Amino acid sequence: MAADRRTRLTPEDRREQLLALGVATLADHSIEHLGFERLAAEAGVSRALLHHYFGSKQGLRTEVVRLARDSMLHASQPDLTLPPLERLHDTLVRLVRFVHEHGGTFYSLVRGAASADSEVRAAVDEAREVHTDRVVAVFLELGSPDTAMLRIALRSWVAFAEQTLVDAVYGERLPAEEVVELLERTARSVVAALDSARA
Amino acid sequence: MAADRRTRLTPEDRREQLLALGVATLADHSIEHLGFERLAAEAGVSRALLHHYFGSKQGLRTEVVRLARDSMLHASQPDLTLPPLERLHDTLVRLVRFVHEHGGTFYSLVRGAASADSEVRAAVDEAREVHTDRVVAVFLELGSPDTAMLRIALRSWVAFAEQTLVDAVYGERLPAEEVVELLERTARSVVAALDSARA
Repeated sequence: MAADRRTRLTPEDRREQLLALGVATLADHSIEHLGFERLAAEAGVSRALLHHYFGSKQGLRTEVVRLARDSMLHASQPDLTLPPLERLHDTLVRLVRFVHEHGGTFYSLVRGAASADSEVRAAVDEAREVHTDRVVAVFLELGSPDTAMLRIALRSWVAFAEQTLVDAVYGERLPAEEVVELLERTARSVVAALDSARA
Repeated sequence: MAADRRTRLTPEDRREQLLALGVATLADHSIEHLGFERLAAEAGVSRALLHHYFGSKQGLRTEVVRLARDSMLHASQPDLTLPPLERLHDTLVRLVRFVHEHGGTFYSLVRGAASADSEVRAAVDEAREVHTDRVVAVFLELGSPDTAMLRIALRSWVAFAEQTLVDAVYGERLPAEEVVELLERTARSVVAALDSARA
């Protein structure tokens, strides 16, 4: 049966299925644990096929991290019909839900930020930049001046949020509302700290 | 001359000298780039000698990261004769100065937090825990209740501070006072956010 189904997959479908299996391993393992051997065993395909699809172990890892990252970014995509602070709240609610449901994957992504593999690192850094852009947009709309320090402070707040999500949601499984409230309040107070420093 | 001096070193001195050379490489390279070959070339000693002193590449890396970490923790050691908020200020002034002078080393330490090598990761995690203990002590002295959320929030603030130090001090070289002020204000406002969430 399984073999029959596999033979009916188009190359594109099979490639996606292999990547999805790769993403699934991030739930329990860091990206450094993903290689052709492990994936070949799990997917029941040859290493030669994986080599054909992904070229190298690095290529496979980069694509897996990008797919996991994009699913996180998609899950927390801001609803641009909402006014800024409601949009921030709504985005955080969905991000916390993602980490609740995919904590291991989120942790692997956070750890990937310091991967020795520069492509993996770049893929994760891009996610941080997207998160930063999103929260910067909120505060620019609220009237904060567009300074280098605003961007640095909110990029640092993204690092804050990552650590809180790993510790409070993935680790301690604290109530979602409590975590969302802490993240909202700290984002606002970081910006308030900049404003009062300028005053 | 150099050879003469080397032959007069005790084994303990020579070992320390080799470790200091290893720490120096962290200024420009992540710990993953440090191995027996590079260090043997830089120190003008044989790989066999390094093997004798450090056992394995992993052993060398762990000791180098620990030494760099301890010099950072020593540079920012809290002055316990100061009252809590002055102590926090003084600690941050010295930490910012350390990053100003040893930015590459600090960056390598931060990146080591997600190293694939679990010993390196543990060494860097320990530094985060020490930083967290220090700032938690400040706020407990100021009367904050000792909760799991306080510790999570301040551990996240340590991640915030690391990112700010990397971006604002090592990257942009913004004025030290501005960075210290942002870090002080955000630490206080993170705790204030917890207090008002409870109220």
